[in-house]
Amino acid sequence: MKNIFIIGVGLIGGSFALDFKKLYPEATIYGIDNNEAHLDEAVKLGVVDHKAVLNDVSKADLVILAIPVDATLNVLPSVLNGIKDDAIVFDAGSTKEDICAAVKKHPKRRNYLAVHPIAGTEYSGPSAAIHGLYHNKTNIICEVEETAFKLQEKALKLFLDLGMRIRYMNPKAHDKHIAYVSHLSHISSFMLGKTVIEKERNERDIFDMAGSGFESTVRLAKSSPAMWAPIFQQNKTNVIETLDEYITNLKHFKTLMENENFEAVYKEMETANRIKEILNGIQ
Amino acid sequence: MKNIFIIGVGLIGGSFALDFKKLYPEATIYGIDNNEAHLDEAVKLGVVDHKAVLNDVSKADLVILAIPVDATLNVLPSVLNGIKDDAIVFDAGSTKEDICAAVKKHPKRRNYLAVHPIAGTEYSGPSAAIHGLYHNKTNIICEVEETAFKLQEKALKLFLDLGMRIRYMNPKAHDKHIAYVSHLSHISSFMLGKTVIEKERNERDIFDMAGSGFESTVRLAKSSPAMWAPIFQQNKTNVIETLDEYITNLKHFKTLMENENFEAVYKEMETANRIKEILNGIQ
Repeated sequence: MKNIFIIGVGLIGGSFALDFKKLYPEATIYGIDNNEAHLDEAVKLGVVDHKAVLNDVSKADLVILAIPVDATLNVLPSVLNGIKDDAIVFDAGSTKEDICAAVKKHPKRRNYLAVHPIAGTEYSGPSAAIHGLYHNKTNIICEVEETAFKLQEKALKLFLDLGMRIRYMNPKAHDKHIAYVSHLSHISSFMLGKTVIEKERNERDIFDMAGSGFESTVRLAKSSPAMWAPIFQQNKTNVIETLDEYITNLKHFKTLMENENFEAVYKEMETANRIKEILNGIQ
Repeated sequence: MKNIFIIGVGLIGGSFALDFKKLYPEATIYGIDNNEAHLDEAVKLGVVDHKAVLNDVSKADLVILAIPVDATLNVLPSVLNGIKDDAIVFDAGSTKEDICAAVKKHPKRRNYLAVHPIAGTEYSGPSAAIHGLYHNKTNIICEVEETAFKLQEKALKLFLDLGMRIRYMNPKAHDKHIAYVSHLSHISSFMLGKTVIEKERNERDIFDMAGSGFESTVRLAKSSPAMWAPIFQQNKTNVIETLDEYITNLKHFKTLMENENFEAVYKEMETANRIKEILNGIQ
């Protein structure tokens, strides 16, 4: 693992860079980004060693794409065109179906591994990159059988070195379930933020009344629209389905309140309380 | 401050007990609770010194009510009936209008201070009580002018000793704004939990895919229904209004997605991003 290329030197790509630099001190980390300021910042912060351009991937042993999922659709085939035969390429996108479809017939398909590390924070850019972001996190790998044996093995070692848990899924199932446990959370949070900002526009000091509960539920509303708009676009059908169900549940809750049926309101919350055991189970 | 009575020895009451015990080592802390097991647990954990019953409040210097807001409507007048002339009584409920109305004409109204400490966690019961829960937290006091001067002063000192920020509001404004920055967050979280649990009922290992973002947005779905059903009941009108606006915003987001208007989806998120500065402002 001599030459590692990170395309997109933000939170996700930058955090891979920091960990790989530590794990493989002999490696050189190259950064590629269409935001020149971010690239300079990444070098300055020591997140990457050198700036590079797409053509340079011909010397890469490993290429990581950590850019918005719409950009991945275009950049991934070009990267595969340019790499040498034993290089490994993986992405880190929150959608997998469209991305896998985009390279399904690519002659270098077997150099690519479709990856979704379930890790992140609500911050973005090179300064958001942190050591150990991936430690003890779940890493979902899709269509593993489409990747060459030796490169599967190589990639697996990388993820185990990072301390990740590996889960294998097909892209369709990934996109369907991730809509529930990630994409919907982001929309609920963005719209909660919007609702409160709209209402309290002229009463800024009202936010003095907000506690840690509010902060927790609107945390994801700080997320990057440039990252999330393409995710919602690519996972449109699944996300709309989750939104439909969420809206139906909220309307039902409202109807129970309007009908003064607070016994049923109580039961609704009691059912949702089961999330306690479920969350404990995943920790 | 010799005899402090805590009615409701859970997260909120228990945390007051722990801090007051530390601040005023000479005081004796009495616990009252209609859950006998909780009361025994509170004594065992050292949250309170002794068990007591409602009639004992005649010897109290301070009484704190930290019980569900519907119970407060009944218990607060009885407590006021039983206390001596210079005792101070405050509650910690998340609604203020109905509670203030319930004691508006009580002969001992001037012994009562209507209080809402914006603090808590998603846990409940005596074992959830923690030291320092109120440090650097906002404490909203309503109708302060209805409380006797000397008792206003005494209570203010208590809250400053705890390290709290004081804000004065009228009960109507309190209930309206707290619906946005607290009550709505809880419903959004409960219904998010419900939506995901319903969908993934038969696929428990799907929760392996959930990351810290999901955890953050459903954290409040662990909250106690016994505490929250009466809050929603008392603040029904305001909460329904916030729910209406939240549902409208979610439907609008869904329509934008259905119309493939992802530029507008981007802008929706960009607007909600303003929550960053607002949250920074409150810290």
